[in-house]
Amino acid sequence: MQEFAKHLELIGMDNLPEIKEGDDLTALFLNALEEKDLGLEDGDAIVFTSKIVSKSEGRVVDLLEVEVGEVAEQMAKDTDKDPRIAQLVLNEAKEVVRKMRNHIIVETKHGFVCANAGVDESNVEQGKAVLLPEDPQRSAYLLKRDIERRSGVDISVLLSDSFGRAFRDGVTGTCIGVSGIPALLDRRGEEDRFGKVAMVTKEAIADEICAAANLIMGEFKEGIPIVVVRGLKLKRCESDIKEVLFPREEDLFR
Amino acid sequence: MQEFAKHLELIGMDNLPEIKEGDDLTALFLNALEEKDLGLEDGDAIVFTSKIVSKSEGRVVDLLEVEVGEVAEQMAKDTDKDPRIAQLVLNEAKEVVRKMRNHIIVETKHGFVCANAGVDESNVEQGKAVLLPEDPQRSAYLLKRDIERRSGVDISVLLSDSFGRAFRDGVTGTCIGVSGIPALLDRRGEEDRFGKVAMVTKEAIADEICAAANLIMGEFKEGIPIVVVRGLKLKRCESDIKEVLFPREEDLFR
Repeated sequence: MQEFAKHLELIGMDNLPEIKEGDDLTALFLNALEEKDLGLEDGDAIVFTSKIVSKSEGRVVDLLEVEVGEVAEQMAKDTDKDPRIAQLVLNEAKEVVRKMRNHIIVETKHGFVCANAGVDESNVEQGKAVLLPEDPQRSAYLLKRDIERRSGVDISVLLSDSFGRAFRDGVTGTCIGVSGIPALLDRRGEEDRFGKVAMVTKEAIADEICAAANLIMGEFKEGIPIVVVRGLKLKRCESDIKEVLFPREEDLFR
Repeated sequence: MQEFAKHLELIGMDNLPEIKEGDDLTALFLNALEEKDLGLEDGDAIVFTSKIVSKSEGRVVDLLEVEVGEVAEQMAKDTDKDPRIAQLVLNEAKEVVRKMRNHIIVETKHGFVCANAGVDESNVEQGKAVLLPEDPQRSAYLLKRDIERRSGVDISVLLSDSFGRAFRDGVTGTCIGVSGIPALLDRRGEEDRFGKVAMVTKEAIADEICAAANLIMGEFKEGIPIVVVRGLKLKRCESDIKEVLFPREEDLFR
């Protein structure tokens, strides 16, 4: 029987250095915790902004080194974007879902539908852009394994990026990799308080956790790239963010 | 200058009675807090599940009393739904956005794009269905005003419902009414840590707060219809959830 949390705590780690290629995120995170006199607790969910994972993995591109092809040139004209960014977006995309002025919505190679394939020029040196991790699901898994090995505590790891949504303005923290807890809490078949059986409810808890963490991560100078979410009472399991991605034929909006 | 939160706390209120028409939610909430020896703090965001607001406002329909028209009959056949539910969905809808087996996605009279116009048979007596509040933005405003008057504390109120998303499976807590804090945190023009100016970032904080609260509200027997989110450092302002709704012509997905 699933137990339920009645109290949650979110702790922002504001004492990490600027991350560069090759940095050991697990060591930096555990040091930052120690510096704050904090320990990990069983069941903690650790949310990493995808940007520091990308940086540690060397997924930073110098725009001067991008060779722009014809398709990207045209895309850049159509959308009023830097042709080099358009090229990077195409490199990262499996399919262009929508394009218009200032917007290129694609399905990334990982299967995420998002703007600009997650290619982002913010919070990186001028003239550079950050790509999403090559395999964010694997990054989450490796971070979880590493943190558990070195801390001896059972935790979960989520990678978060800011994605826009259809039908609603604004971005929200969205999960692109999860390890240790399910991406979806499938509650079909459970009874409600009146004994009725639920038909369709799957709760996208990994996305909700990343949205919650994003409230303190913010997007700018806050410098909080890791948030510890404490108090969740979720079953531990192997998981994969692909659980939230619709098979193409079930996707109502493509 | 916006100040930023580094620590958040979410407190689930698990000691409210089953809500019925005419109930004074403010009194019940403040009593429940007192019973727990908790006070309100300036800046607390109080998230109400839309269902208890609907119930207190009498937005519960007896399905035996629904008269089904021809359009709803056909819709019910097309989507394999109860014709009475199809009728209620049409009553609440401004426009049908998509339909297929088990799914009717509409724009509600309020402007929200969601499944079944928010009409929901869970957590209500057999044979009944709950509609969204008539004007959830106004409900949020009235609850905020009432709680502030009776408590003397400056708070904000959000109404949350579980909505599905395009491109991703599973529901997340989503805001349908907000009063006291902005629905969107518009950060265009702010500089990042490298001095670059942000071009397009608006963060949908009202939705993120509702998503966070939904992690402890859950959908079933948990019985946590109200969550207090403590520690946000947001500017107080008049607000309206319509801020997150795209003007039709800017909506890439319709």
